[in-house]
Amino acid sequence: MYILKKTTEAELNRVQVNIAKELASEKIIQELYEYIFSTRGKKTRALLCLLASKSSKIKSNKRVALASVIELLHTATLVHDDVVDESKRRRGMQSVNQVWTNSHSVLIGDFIYSKAFILMVKLNISSILDELANATNDIARGEIIQLSLFEKKQCITLDDLLKISYLKTGRLFEASAKTGAMLASNSKKEIKIFGLLGKALGTAFQIKDDILDYESRLDTGKTPLKDFREGKITFPLYFALQNASTKDKNFLLKKLGQPRLLKKDIKLIHQLIQTNETQKELSGLMNKYTNETLKYLNQLKHHPCYNELLYLINISHIRKI
Amino acid sequence: MYILKKTTEAELNRVQVNIAKELASEKIIQELYEYIFSTRGKKTRALLCLLASKSSKIKSNKRVALASVIELLHTATLVHDDVVDESKRRRGMQSVNQVWTNSHSVLIGDFIYSKAFILMVKLNISSILDELANATNDIARGEIIQLSLFEKKQCITLDDLLKISYLKTGRLFEASAKTGAMLASNSKKEIKIFGLLGKALGTAFQIKDDILDYESRLDTGKTPLKDFREGKITFPLYFALQNASTKDKNFLLKKLGQPRLLKKDIKLIHQLIQTNETQKELSGLMNKYTNETLKYLNQLKHHPCYNELLYLINISHIRKI
Repeated sequence: MYILKKTTEAELNRVQVNIAKELASEKIIQELYEYIFSTRGKKTRALLCLLASKSSKIKSNKRVALASVIELLHTATLVHDDVVDESKRRRGMQSVNQVWTNSHSVLIGDFIYSKAFILMVKLNISSILDELANATNDIARGEIIQLSLFEKKQCITLDDLLKISYLKTGRLFEASAKTGAMLASNSKKEIKIFGLLGKALGTAFQIKDDILDYESRLDTGKTPLKDFREGKITFPLYFALQNASTKDKNFLLKKLGQPRLLKKDIKLIHQLIQTNETQKELSGLMNKYTNETLKYLNQLKHHPCYNELLYLINISHIRKI
Repeated sequence: MYILKKTTEAELNRVQVNIAKELASEKIIQELYEYIFSTRGKKTRALLCLLASKSSKIKSNKRVALASVIELLHTATLVHDDVVDESKRRRGMQSVNQVWTNSHSVLIGDFIYSKAFILMVKLNISSILDELANATNDIARGEIIQLSLFEKKQCITLDDLLKISYLKTGRLFEASAKTGAMLASNSKKEIKIFGLLGKALGTAFQIKDDILDYESRLDTGKTPLKDFREGKITFPLYFALQNASTKDKNFLLKKLGQPRLLKKDIKLIHQLIQTNETQKELSGLMNKYTNETLKYLNQLKHHPCYNELLYLINISHIRKI
C-alpha cells in the first residue's frame, strides 16, 4: 500500500497556510477570501505539482509557492464556474454567489486569478509563466466550448467530450505536473513525460467526476445529478444515450436540463446509467486513462516520488468524492 | 494646438490589428471575440502606454505588443463589469451578456485576461509582469470595495470615492504609463514620474466619466444616469447630496438605484447636479487632477512625446464621450 510521506503532507499544509496569507486589507475581501479558502478541497493539482517538483536541487519553499499558485488558479476557476453553472453549493458549503452575489463571485475570482499571477511572477521562471498563462486560457476556452455544446445535445461525440475534459481539467493537471518538473529543472524528456502523465491523470479525474455526479448523494455536499440538471452531457449520459431504447433516450433528453426532478425520474435516470453496457464502457474508458497514466509513471521509476505518484493515481481512480 | 503624430496613430491601429490576430480556432470563441473587438473604443490606456514607451532604444513592435496587452486587460475588465453592473449596452452596442449570457461574459473575460498574460510573458520583462499582475489585482479589489459601498450610501466620503477611482481606473492608467517607461528602460526617476502622471490622469479620467454619466444621452450609446440607476454614488452625486436641502437629499436617496425613472424625476436629478455649487466643486476636483497631471508632465519636457502627452491630457479633460 502506497501512502503520502509526512514531509509531503506537511508541504500540502503549507500550501494552505501560504494561500491564507494573501489577504487584502479590506474587510469585504477578507471575508470573501476566507470563506472561499475555509474549506480545504482535495488539492489534487497542488499535490501533483509538489510531487513532480521534488528534487534535491530545489528548495521546498519554491515548490510550495508553485503549488500555491496552482491551487489559487484552480480555485479561481471554481468560483467563476459557480456563476456559469448557477451552482448553489461548493465543497459542502453554499457557493459565493449564494451567500453574496454573482458580482462578488466574478470579482473575487478575478482577484484570486491575479493573485496567482503575482505569485508566479515572483518565481521568475519564464517557461512556467508561459505554461500557466496558456493553461488558464485553455480552461476558459474549454468552458466556452462546453457552453456551446448545450445546443448540440444528441450530436455530441466522444471526441467532443474528451476535448472538453482535457481543456477543462486535464490541461491544469498537465500544467501542474509540467511546471513542477520545470521547477525541478528536469530534462526536456522528463518534463514531457510529466506533462503527458498529468494530462492522462486529469482526463481520468474528469471521467471519475462525471461518474460520481450520478452516484452522489446530498451528504457529500453535492447536489445529486447536478450535471444532468444543468443540461450537461457528460460521459455516463453519453454512453447511456448510446445504449438506451428510443423511448428511454427520449425520456433522458426530455428531462435533461430540468432543475427539478421527480423521485421516480431520478430512479429511472439512475437505472439507465447503471446498465451493464454503460457501466462497462465507463469503466473501460476510466481504465484506459488510468493505464495511460501508469504507463507514463513507468518511465519515471527513478523519480524520488515514484511511490507517492502511484498513490495519487490509485486514490484518484478509486475515490468516492 | 497639439495633435497626435501620424506614426502614433499608425501604432494605435496596429494595436487593434494585433489584438484581432489572437483568435482561437473555435467558432463560438471567434464570434464572441470578434464581437467584443468590433468596436474600437478610445484606447486611451494603450495610447498612454505607446507614448510613455517611445524611445530610440526600443522597437515599435515591442511597444505595440505592450499596448495590446494593456488594451486586452482593460477590455477583460469591461466585459466582467457588464456582468457586475448588469449593463445592457457597451460602446454603443448590446453588451455580451445581452447577446449571449452572463456565463459567456465571465468566460470570455477570463479568456481575454489570460490572453493578455500570455502576450506579456512573451515580452519577458519581470518588472512589467509584476506591475501588470498587481494592477489587475487592484482593479478587482477596487470593484469589490465599490460593491460593498452600496450599503454605506450616505456615509461615503470623498476619500472613499478617490480610493475607488484610483483602484478602478487610475491604477491601470498608472500601470500603462509606468510599464511603458519601463519598456523604454527609462531611469527609475522617470518611471516614477510616469506612474504619478498616469495615476493623476486616470483619476481625472474617472471624474470626467462620472460627470459625463449625468450628461449622457441615448445617442452616445450610453444609458442616461446609468450610474444613478445602478445605485452608485459617484462624484457628481456626492457633491449634490452635500449641497442639497434635506427634502432634495431624501428625494435623491429614494430614487438612487431605481432602474426606471420618470421624466420629471430625471429632470429634477439633473437640476440638483447642475447647481452652481455642485458644478463648481466638480470642476474644481477635475482641475485639481488635470493640473497634477500637467505638473508631472512638466518634469518630462525632454521626452520625445511631450507634445502628444499634452494632447492626451487636454483631450481627456474636454472630451464629451
